[in-house]
Amino acid sequence: MIKVVVLGSGNMAWHLCKVFTASKGIEVVQHYHYNSQGSIFKNFGISFTNNLKNLKKADFYILAVADDAIAKLSINLPVLNGIVLHTSGTVAIKDLETKNQTGVFYPLQTLSKNQPVDFTKIPICIEAINSSDLEKIKLLASQISTTVVEMSSDKRAALHLAAVFANNFVNHLYKQATDICRAHNIEMHLLDELITETALKAIKNTPEESQTGPAKRGDKKTISKHLNMLSEDTKKIYKTLSDSLLENYGREKL
Amino acid sequence: MIKVVVLGSGNMAWHLCKVFTASKGIEVVQHYHYNSQGSIFKNFGISFTNNLKNLKKADFYILAVADDAIAKLSINLPVLNGIVLHTSGTVAIKDLETKNQTGVFYPLQTLSKNQPVDFTKIPICIEAINSSDLEKIKLLASQISTTVVEMSSDKRAALHLAAVFANNFVNHLYKQATDICRAHNIEMHLLDELITETALKAIKNTPEESQTGPAKRGDKKTISKHLNMLSEDTKKIYKTLSDSLLENYGREKL
Repeated sequence: MIKVVVLGSGNMAWHLCKVFTASKGIEVVQHYHYNSQGSIFKNFGISFTNNLKNLKKADFYILAVADDAIAKLSINLPVLNGIVLHTSGTVAIKDLETKNQTGVFYPLQTLSKNQPVDFTKIPICIEAINSSDLEKIKLLASQISTTVVEMSSDKRAALHLAAVFANNFVNHLYKQATDICRAHNIEMHLLDELITETALKAIKNTPEESQTGPAKRGDKKTISKHLNMLSEDTKKIYKTLSDSLLENYGREKL
Repeated sequence: MIKVVVLGSGNMAWHLCKVFTASKGIEVVQHYHYNSQGSIFKNFGISFTNNLKNLKKADFYILAVADDAIAKLSINLPVLNGIVLHTSGTVAIKDLETKNQTGVFYPLQTLSKNQPVDFTKIPICIEAINSSDLEKIKLLASQISTTVVEMSSDKRAALHLAAVFANNFVNHLYKQATDICRAHNIEMHLLDELITETALKAIKNTPEESQTGPAKRGDKKTISKHLNMLSEDTKKIYKTLSDSLLENYGREKL
């Protein structure tokens, strides 16, 4: 049984506690958070502490905390027998204090509390300083996911950046689409099939093969109609993306 | 049997010929295109003409042509016994010349030639001048789709604009993500699960509930790291969307 301590109380900590608890090969022996907010995890039945001096013995100490809290927390840890992992896309492995063995365990997915995800399909990007630690982290990751990828800090940062486009920004465009529907009393679920098909096409083909629409066609008349229908903030998004598309497809910018 | 003539030779014409030909209740009696490019449809086994004077008798004449060709083509048509439909999201019904009965038949989907789609799931937005024509168009649409929605030209234009965000622009963001992966030798299919989950979440919840990421958190340090990794064009897209997110979530803009 692989023993882990999860530190933190955000979306990542919540999901890791959940999936680890459900995994036959892993035991979450303790959950740490600096204050009693940690109690939100009590329904997992995991022992809790808010004192770093009381951390239990484990194979892994997983720092599932905000990016800018990782380095400091790793400094404040006592010397431990297990490997200290962080779960961030952007933080380098070298930002972890080296009094302990260190590594990275980055699940590439958008996680919101209370929204279940299928971890088996989530790629987990791992990194370690030496191959022995790497093997141990691989064993941990493979308990919950079928896609475990070794990746350097630099590559992981690039993958995280790509994920910001593919998730955070895409979702913000869904919001613009939804807002337009709301403003015109249009049932927003009419867009469901389009949203699904767009995602499936992107996976099946390259985005270049799937691109359609007025900006690709250089249809300035439709673009101009659209710009007149939008508020200032949304207009700026529309214009920036259309200009980029127009340029990409060899047409004159707006 | 509902008889239709399809005019045009783009993605929409291709898909309509395909789905109509496969439908038991519809017969495509003729395909028109102004030049012999129409021959790309010959494998459907549909009679072809490039002469508007030779159009066959049908219940519907479907103008599946570019937006700015619709009005002119409707003027050039002879007086016909069937209803003349266009398939555009943005063109108003009143742009069709009224010597014939007119209507709109707009399938809300991104269509690329040779890429099969399941028309039964595609919403078809219809419009007509009178209720008798509307019923006929509804009957046609319901042969191929389970979601047929009556919608005014104004509402349809707004829905089309929403679709530009949810499809054209989203796909362009997928391209940015893919480009970043390519530049860093990262297997781009690592993003597949994220792309799928992002789309499914948007359908199940509101985009506001699903939003995550550095801009939502106001994490300027990560945003600044990201901007430094990007080319000028992509940086502009990143900045515009991040500024919009920062503003949306009550944080100071970049």
